Amino acid sequence: MKRIGYVGLGIMGTPMALNLIKAGFDLTVWNRTEAKAKDVLDAGASWAESPAEVAEKVEAVCINVTDTPDVEDVIFGKHGIVEGNPGDTAEMVVIDHSTISPASTRLFAERLAEHGVDMLDAPVSGGDVGARNGTLSVMVGGKRAVFERCSLIFKAVGKAITHCGPNGAGQATKACNQVLCAVNLMGVCEAMALAQREGLDLEKMLAVTTAGAGGSWSLANLGPQIAEGDMKPGFMIDLINKDLNIVQAESTGLNLPMPATGLARDLLRAAAISGHGRDGTQALSRVFEKLGGFTYHE
Amino acid sequence: MKRIGYVGLGIMGTPMALNLIKAGFDLTVWNRTEAKAKDVLDAGASWAESPAEVAEKVEAVCINVTDTPDVEDVIFGKHGIVEGNPGDTAEMVVIDHSTISPASTRLFAERLAEHGVDMLDAPVSGGDVGARNGTLSVMVGGKRAVFERCSLIFKAVGKAITHCGPNGAGQATKACNQVLCAVNLMGVCEAMALAQREGLDLEKMLAVTTAGAGGSWSLANLGPQIAEGDMKPGFMIDLINKDLNIVQAESTGLNLPMPATGLARDLLRAAAISGHGRDGTQALSRVFEKLGGFTYHE
Repeated sequence: MKRIGYVGLGIMGTPMALNLIKAGFDLTVWNRTEAKAKDVLDAGASWAESPAEVAEKVEAVCINVTDTPDVEDVIFGKHGIVEGNPGDTAEMVVIDHSTISPASTRLFAERLAEHGVDMLDAPVSGGDVGARNGTLSVMVGGKRAVFERCSLIFKAVGKAITHCGPNGAGQATKACNQVLCAVNLMGVCEAMALAQREGLDLEKMLAVTTAGAGGSWSLANLGPQIAEGDMKPGFMIDLINKDLNIVQAESTGLNLPMPATGLARDLLRAAAISGHGRDGTQALSRVFEKLGGFTYHE
Repeated sequence: MKRIGYVGLGIMGTPMALNLIKAGFDLTVWNRTEAKAKDVLDAGASWAESPAEVAEKVEAVCINVTDTPDVEDVIFGKHGIVEGNPGDTAEMVVIDHSTISPASTRLFAERLAEHGVDMLDAPVSGGDVGARNGTLSVMVGGKRAVFERCSLIFKAVGKAITHCGPNGAGQATKACNQVLCAVNLMGVCEAMALAQREGLDLEKMLAVTTAGAGGSWSLANLGPQIAEGDMKPGFMIDLINKDLNIVQAESTGLNLPMPATGLARDLLRAAAISGHGRDGTQALSRVFEKLGGFTYHE
């Protein structure tokens, strides 16, 4: 594959598209707001007037939009990808890098198959830094043969690339990852709340616990930011809330109790209500401060 | 310091006392059940008939018993350590390796000071394996000068030795550690429940998430055990429940809401009620299986 389409040039899509160009792919792009395509067009990509027009010119279309309805719209909506699909002989693939519903992903894959189009769900983790450096973790769901056909695309944007299983398995793995991030973060905020109220030196507490059985990525990376009151976003409250809404819908569909995720979701929602939606997820600590009537740093 | 007392020769105390003997200390020991002192006596320790008699013969007494009332009893009870204390000129130190209440620890330290005795709280983490290998993490609270005076004792039993702050700071740090362990474990169980119900390959999900922002000690170490149905204890449900009861009492005393720990405690209590008290903490997964009507491995 040489000719690739890219739909959705936001904070993740732009650096990923640039890495595809660097890797030698011939890119045709579309974005709802054309102005945001400037960096990618300057780097040599061609503009198309719609997802349909993108699909007419390429062998695979990467999608990187926000939520489930956005993905549905660019694939199946007016001037969507399926309208531009050149037909099943062309072996067209839709690669969805967005983080959306696993259940909807399976339905989208079935509907695309009726149009002779293969689909891979391929949500990523690693943030905009990982996107720029091409070091994302890519969790892929779909047929193994299709995954292998697209492997050079994944290698251009990511480092740890895993075929997780059939359609939806990439999104389901990402959902599990977000559950772990949210619950671990909640534990970090709560342990640090206890530490603060006990009068401990937070840095010492973090150093001791990070090295032991209480350690986690969240503790090592977000703990010090909480101690310093640094709320700069690595990953935003609004985005983890979007992802946890996906988990909530999924757990409802599966009839699976998820009490810890439910609690984390409510507290993270409170963080957004308090105005921290565009802060980093560590701003969950602000909710614990309000709950407990204290501050982590004095 | 050369002459050390050891009170409490259980699964942790015995290997720690043996490491002190190996390091050249002259040990006098007492244990409620004398028979359990055999290994330590065979290695060269002397027996005393009570904690008081231990205290008469040594410069520092290490305590390693189960809970707060046990510590109070061996220090202040009949034939307790203070009865045998040779007086303030001797600069006697009580080193408590048990995991007990931070608030009670501060009171014990004050009461001991009235007898001219210094106290260090020095709970450990690393389990019986760490105790045997002398690689425990030791979290110490108390006066820095006293801590430094006892440093060779700590070096004989542990590897990462931290002076966390004044009396109680070691226990408070341990409490934070147990909060992190419990909440992280709850997240692992819940993410794996979602993975199982989504039909994911658990090993692949664990590999992907362990390497990323969802990673934790619990995920890396207990996740595979849950996937394999291995409930062998590294650290027992009954013991983390004891520790979380300490956290509960502490949070009540501090008037601090700890919703995640409260949830974890209830679910871990359910694990004990279901007969998993002497299984490893990963048996919390059995509670999630009952809640969700599934099994992690089929």
